[in-house]
Amino acid sequence: MRLQIDVALDYHFPQPAEVLLAVEVAQLPDQRLIEDRLTVDGAAGPLTPVAGEDGIGRRTWLHASGRLQAAYRATVELRRPLCPIDNLPICPLAELPSEAIAYLWPSRYCQSDQFETFVDRRFGDLAGGAKLLAMRDWIHDELEYAPGSSDTTTTAADAFVARAGVCRDYAHLLASFARAAGVPARLTSAYALGLKPPDFHAVIEVWLDGAWHILDATGLAPAEGVVRICVGRDATDIAFMTIFGSAVMNSQSVTVTRL
Amino acid sequence: MRLQIDVALDYHFPQPAEVLLAVEVAQLPDQRLIEDRLTVDGAAGPLTPVAGEDGIGRRTWLHASGRLQAAYRATVELRRPLCPIDNLPICPLAELPSEAIAYLWPSRYCQSDQFETFVDRRFGDLAGGAKLLAMRDWIHDELEYAPGSSDTTTTAADAFVARAGVCRDYAHLLASFARAAGVPARLTSAYALGLKPPDFHAVIEVWLDGAWHILDATGLAPAEGVVRICVGRDATDIAFMTIFGSAVMNSQSVTVTRL
Amino acid sequence: MRLQIDVALDYHFPQPAEVLLAVEVAQLPDQRLIEDRLTVDGAAGPLTPVAGEDGIGRRTWLHASGRLQAAYRATVELRRPLCPIDNLPICPLAELPSEAIAYLWPSRYCQSDQFETFVDRRFGDLAGGAKLLAMRDWIHDELEYAPGSSDTTTTAADAFVARAGVCRDYAHLLASFARAAGVPARLTSAYALGLKPPDFHAVIEVWLDGAWHILDATGLAPAEGVVRICVGRDATDIAFMTIFGSAVMNSQSVTVTRL
Amino acid sequence: MRLQIDVALDYHFPQPAEVLLAVEVAQLPDQRLIEDRLTVDGAAGPLTPVAGEDGIGRRTWLHASGRLQAAYRATVELRRPLCPIDNLPICPLAELPSEAIAYLWPSRYCQSDQFETFVDRRFGDLAGGAKLLAMRDWIHDELEYAPGSSDTTTTAADAFVARAGVCRDYAHLLASFARAAGVPARLTSAYALGLKPPDFHAVIEVWLDGAWHILDATGLAPAEGVVRICVGRDATDIAFMTIFGSAVMNSQSVTVTRL
Repeated sequence: MRLQIDVALDYHFPQPAEVLLAVEVAQLPDQRLIEDRLTVDGAAGPLTPVAGEDGIGRRTWLHASGRLQAAYRATVELRRPLCPIDNLPICPLAELPSEAIAYLWPSRYCQSDQFETFVDRRFGDLAGGAKLLAMRDWIHDELEYAPGSSDTTTTAADAFVARAGVCRDYAHLLASFARAAGVPARLTSAYALGLKPPDFHAVIEVWLDGAWHILDATGLAPAEGVVRICVGRDATDIAFMTIFGSAVMNSQSVTVTRL
Repeated sequence: MRLQIDVALDYHFPQPAEVLLAVEVAQLPDQRLIEDRLTVDGAAGPLTPVAGEDGIGRRTWLHASGRLQAAYRATVELRRPLCPIDNLPICPLAELPSEAIAYLWPSRYCQSDQFETFVDRRFGDLAGGAKLLAMRDWIHDELEYAPGSSDTTTTAADAFVARAGVCRDYAHLLASFARAAGVPARLTSAYALGLKPPDFHAVIEVWLDGAWHILDATGLAPAEGVVRICVGRDATDIAFMTIFGSAVMNSQSVTVTRL
Repeated sequence: MRLQIDVALDYHFPQPAEVLLAVEVAQLPDQRLIEDRLTVDGAAGPLTPVAGEDGIGRRTWLHASGRLQAAYRATVELRRPLCPIDNLPICPLAELPSEAIAYLWPSRYCQSDQFETFVDRRFGDLAGGAKLLAMRDWIHDELEYAPGSSDTTTTAADAFVARAGVCRDYAHLLASFARAAGVPARLTSAYALGLKPPDFHAVIEVWLDGAWHILDATGLAPAEGVVRICVGRDATDIAFMTIFGSAVMNSQSVTVTRL
Repeated sequence: MRLQIDVALDYHFPQPAEVLLAVEVAQLPDQRLIEDRLTVDGAAGPLTPVAGEDGIGRRTWLHASGRLQAAYRATVELRRPLCPIDNLPICPLAELPSEAIAYLWPSRYCQSDQFETFVDRRFGDLAGGAKLLAMRDWIHDELEYAPGSSDTTTTAADAFVARAGVCRDYAHLLASFARAAGVPARLTSAYALGLKPPDFHAVIEVWLDGAWHILDATGLAPAEGVVRICVGRDATDIAFMTIFGSAVMNSQSVTVTRL
């Protein structure tokens, strides 16, 4: 299916600041970027592109001062074959490629080492992709999706205790469970068809049977309509905008339309 | 029943240090202290007694330097009527006495405010003492009693995530659940008949129907044989020995015998 | 000097909730409460008074539903003799009264045990009240008073790292330093003449030479014009309003006037 | 100069476990690995090599059960030109290569975002490499090198508060300061000539003027004799042995000899 994505960002920077934007759709086999355009009003100097983490996607440095208006439009062809992961095997640790190993480690917001006993007790009898699906379902059932219940400092452990969060918290917790079971898991920022209200979304990808597979514990949008932006260890790596300074949001919108 | 308690502490203090011992059995209606004696070898200067938190029990200041050997022996008559708490009502907040209110608040190791959603979802349908018993049973079932799995910095939230701990962690978690449900809960250090291996124990007391009631999520010792030492908000308040400096333990033993 | 205090609180409670108000001026030797009146519109049922922590001050339980408007007016005569604390001795631990001991312990927002090395290195050469004044001045110089830089979860350690905070953070950090040096320190909520903008204030009291002495690291208001409301281990204990449920503030004002 | 490195590890694995060893010297322009050999007794099945993070160095997967004895010997020629970094410029953010950007982010043990105010107040007047050297010296002066004062859960913020730590804590804090100033900084595990007692060491590398430069806030070993093993965001990434299970150390030794 073909999707059009439109992003409009309108921010005010009281002092000059460097900004790293990560809003551009990644060019990947299952999501072919047909065309896209990022335009920025209010940036001083050039826009500097730089590859995303793991070479996935692209980010853009810009220098902001005063009002900054950025618009991004992309057309993308999604060809994501439906692949049920229930029966996919978990990769033996010693066969993991180097780039997957970093996604085994606990990270700031995914303290997977603390969840080992819980994960073993709750999901230890399951194997392969079915174990990951059970984790996803457990999180979906046990957490309340509650905007405002968490902030940028909330960790997976915090969300596990609070039983509430938003997409980033669901993703952190699912990634923590996966890593605690020896399955590499990375956070992925994305656009998602059907997400209500439309916004930047966060899902995870788990390494099963030699490839990354998308999982979304929120259940807010089907995996078929997910368009990946960039990947990383946790929310810090995949922020759509990292500001080296401070800014105030005037408005912001994301639209995903099926063409 | 009548119990005899024997404690022997043997510590080495490389530098002079102030020490607050809290090992003496509290004189309370349901545990009548018949006689006790604390003797200390190696303390410089006098032993200074001071009342425990909430006026319960007694602590002793001493000045240690080099080797310190303390022995405590107590004979206590326990007359704790079996009181099933299932049907005891939870006290309306506005009727709580002043001294119970402090035990509603989250504390360093009992972050009860973080557990409100979980407690409401899991135990919200229950009322009165039955709710507290369900909390106790949940903790007993979901946690592994695992010496070495926690340390003095472990919080209730940590234990909830790790699903493991020792008596202090069980007590912190149960107190957190109770407070999250609006029930005052305090930590209580105790001796316990039948505890294996014998050691200082930690339980909690909850305020139900106008009185404090002992609860022990570890299930390691029956409430009838619990002899309280002192009470407080969490483990910090009820340490059997607080050292203002550093020390090395040579040996330590606790014995509880039925006479 | 004689002060008049006026507080107006206007809140909305979407669901019925229990509320503990702690806004009433404490009757104390150095602050004689001449008259005061708390009126509440919108409370269902009676107002239930209950003593504050340590028997200092008074709190009021009320049951709120929908809009709640509370007004408090007090006239208080302050007779706080100027008492320079520079030369007051620190009380030997073994001579502390029982009620001061709890204020030696680390608490949730005052992790004094973590500051022992820093406090010893920075202030170890000082003695008596001069040590406490040096702590106060260090905090005043090293932290930025920055509304919005902290929230209700910010600890003394957080503020020490961030080098920013508001009155509650200054108080938490100063109490942590004091406790790390073996000096009991409690948080105190207060009204303060000259505070700009006028608001509820937080200061600390340290136990020196057998009495509590007010210290305020913010420097925002002179100690002579501080009117204490209630005391506790940290911010949790001294909140002017604790809501067992949720509420939205419509407006709130505090005025302190010299008569 | 030419160094010989010898490592001997003797561990017991009560249950079979996967192990990732990261002890092998990285082949890099300034440290030419002449020959090395890793031998393992007690591993079931093959040793599986895998590249280190960022393609630097090499790690080895092995399957352990019962006793595991590993020996590693390497000969390495160090040609690290003395390069004073005082005057090296800090790279503008928009000119950072993709692989350096991840080392700008806060990580689990390096919460650089929390240190921004402190770093700006203390080091904000300095520029270029001189700023980094001032950070290194500040940490050296303000922290006590104290084995046992920290554990594997200690963060940079913890060490900053406690004013104590070991090499990993010094490295975490220095990396946090650097990142807070917009300078990419990574943790680096290393062997170090002259380190007493000899052990695995942790230093950091900062990105200045288009290259990574070694910094060591402990002052325990000169940078000229540092032999890098692998790199990462913080201690998790660079552990010399990551055990997916549990083990007991029988003995362990590291020797670095100048040939």
